[in-house]
Formats: sequence, C-alpha cells, structure tokens
Amino acid sequence: MTSLFHPILLESFATIDREIGPHSFDDRQYAIVRRAIHATADFEFKEAIRFSPGAISSGIDALRRGAPAIADVTMVKQGVAGLLGKTFNNPLLAAVDRFQQAPPGKTRTEAGILECFAEHPEGIFVIGNAPTALLALCDAIQRSDRRPALIVGAPVGFVSVVESKQVLAETDVPQIRIDGRKGGSPVAAAILNALIVLAWQNNGQINDEG
Amino acid sequence: MTSLFHPILLESFATIDREIGPHSFDDRQYAIVRRAIHATADFEFKEAIRFSPGAISSGIDALRRGAPAIADVTMVKQGVAGLLGKTFNNPLLAAVDRFQQAPPGKTRTEAGILECFAEHPEGIFVIGNAPTALLALCDAIQRSDRRPALIVGAPVGFVSVVESKQVLAETDVPQIRIDGRKGGSPVAAAILNALIVLAWQNNGQINDEG
Repeated sequence: MTSLFHPILLESFATIDREIGPHSFDDRQYAIVRRAIHATADFEFKEAIRFSPGAISSGIDALRRGAPAIADVTMVKQGVAGLLGKTFNNPLLAAVDRFQQAPPGKTRTEAGILECFAEHPEGIFVIGNAPTALLALCDAIQRSDRRPALIVGAPVGFVSVVESKQVLAETDVPQIRIDGRKGGSPVAAAILNALIVLAWQNNGQINDEG
Repeated sequence: MTSLFHPILLESFATIDREIGPHSFDDRQYAIVRRAIHATADFEFKEAIRFSPGAISSGIDALRRGAPAIADVTMVKQGVAGLLGKTFNNPLLAAVDRFQQAPPGKTRTEAGILECFAEHPEGIFVIGNAPTALLALCDAIQRSDRRPALIVGAPVGFVSVVESKQVLAETDVPQIRIDGRKGGSPVAAAILNALIVLAWQNNGQINDEG
C-alpha cells in the first residue's frame, strides 16, 4: 500500500534504518519503533518501548473488526484521524471531550476514559498525555471482567507518569508501552498509525508473533 | 494568575527546576524552556532552543494586540486552543486546514501557510511539524516587506528539518527556534503557551530583555 506512505516519510525511514544500530525487534515491532522515532527524532524510544506478547496481533485484529479507538486527548485524536479515515474508519473518540468541566476529585480525561471504558471495554485505548487517565483505566480494568483489545501507554511528564506505566505493566491487557518519563501525543499517535499500516498492508493475513 | 497553572503543572516545574542544572537563560526565556521540557520530558531542549533578540517581547506584544496565531498543523492548534481561549482569545488558524488537497508541487501545509502569510503577514506563526511550511514561509518573507511578529520554528524529523531551521535563522524575523532534528507539535504548542502565560501574568507591563 505505497499510497499510505508519502515519499518524505520513506526517506525519513531510510535515514532511521541507517542510524538505528543493532536491535532485536521483529519486523512488525520495528515498523512501530521506527514510526515513533520518526515522530520525535528521538532514538531513545528504541530503548523505552515495550510490547506485551500478542499485543500487535490483538491491536490489528481490533482495527479490522472496527473496534473504536479511544484517545485520551484531542492531540492524539488529531494525530490518527487522517490515516484511520483513509483506511478502516473505526469510530474515534477523545476522552477529554466527554466533560466540559472536571467532576469533583477527577481530571476531565480521567472521568472521560472511565465513561469510554464502560461503553467500549474492548476498544483500543491510546494514552499520550494523561497519567491520571491511564491509572483510572487500569483501576477500572482490575474491577471488570472485560479487557481492552490494546492499550498504547505513552503518557509523558514528571508527575505520576512512571508510576502509571508500572501499573499498566502489571495488568494482563495487551499493551505497547513507553517506559520512563517520555512519551507524548505524537508518539502515541505514531504507534497507532504504524499499527494501522500493518493491519492494512496485509489485510486478511494475521500471524502471531509480536 | 495561578489559575492558569494546574497543581500537577507546578509540581512538574519544581522537578525540572531541581534537575535542569546550570544555565544562562533569563526569567522569561527559562519559563519557555521549562514548559518545552515539561511537554516532552526531554532536557535536550535546554541545549537546542534559540531566542532571537526581542523575540519574546515581540510575541507578547502581538498576543496582547490580538494578532492571529497561525499553526502549521491541527495538533499544534489543539495544543494552544485551551489556554488561548481562556486568555487573549486571538484568532487561531491551522494552515493545513486551508486545502483539502495539496496543490501540484506543494504540500497542504505549505500552500496553507502561504495563504495565511498573505492574509496576516504580522501574525504569530507556530510551526511544529512541517519543514516545507517553514521553508515556504521564509521564502515568502524574503520577497515581502512585511514581517511576522514571531515565528516559533520547531518542525521535527529527518528530511529538510535542519535545513529549514538554518534558513529561518538567517532571516531578520523575531524567532524562537529549536535547532537540530528535534521539535514537534507539543514543543511548538508549549512555547506559545508559555508566552501566553508571560503576556497574561504581567498584562500591561512590557519590558525589553529577552
């Protein structure tokens, strides 16, 4: 599907291929890592990314069956809207849009993500900003017998971020995670965009590695 | 104006203050650097940021007089819409929204930014993604006697990005720039958001350093 790749994107990928050095990612994992590095020009994501067993296949499967994609913030939603619209056209929500005002004791994204999980427990959750949303989501999952198809866990920052990723790591949910303080909307969007390309390129053929 | 700062933001700033180490930024420059680091958890922006003389004052002045803010992409626009809406409420445009299809030989952001410069040559231009837009803007400026109040030059990536920043550096336009490959929508939005806070905090008092 070369139509999903602008020539500038391919030229950028070639530069990353030359500079990335030794790694042990499989082809599908590498497609995701490369797109995260492309979005940030930051090769540290090579070290910080984590894939749970089966996460890529579960995400691809969910995209193909039309599962909703739920972003924490509008910047993540904006970052995937273009490619999702050109391909599977799954419903796309931003948790933060659910509440105009934060309910007492919660952030807007936290309250919004809980509502989205209640409505779409088997959706694809993409967290690029708000550790409070990721913590609330993990807590709701622990009290539920439903599981998201995939969580992309890539909040960024200095407060509760590292902790929220540790909590996610301890769940049994299929996940692609950026450990440490780094992350962000472009990284979260890049991970889902790479997954959309993988799902679209080999539409109908799923294999199980990754 | 403590209402512009969420407690989590203040806690993050305190962490950055403890970890940033020696630097020679003045107070206004540091407020901008700190917010860029907050958005990315990446202390490299301390080394990569450049302020042209008078850039901060020119940007503050433009915000206060209601100059339009023109983002290259919607992610940047989304990243500043909240704070701008709560404060000066300047018109906010995204260049990429101007064209549904790229005109021959141009990218959508490139064509859009040229149209925005023709309409608002003294606006605040905030480039967080597209080096083609920054190059086209610099070229149009060279052929014009009008000047933007400020360019935030923070495209990210591997193709034409470093070059576009070098071209910007050679113009006489007030600018806050991220040299090198790094940058991105959150960084560009963070720089403008920090500037909005500076302009709002001391509304009515402009001084000239920075």
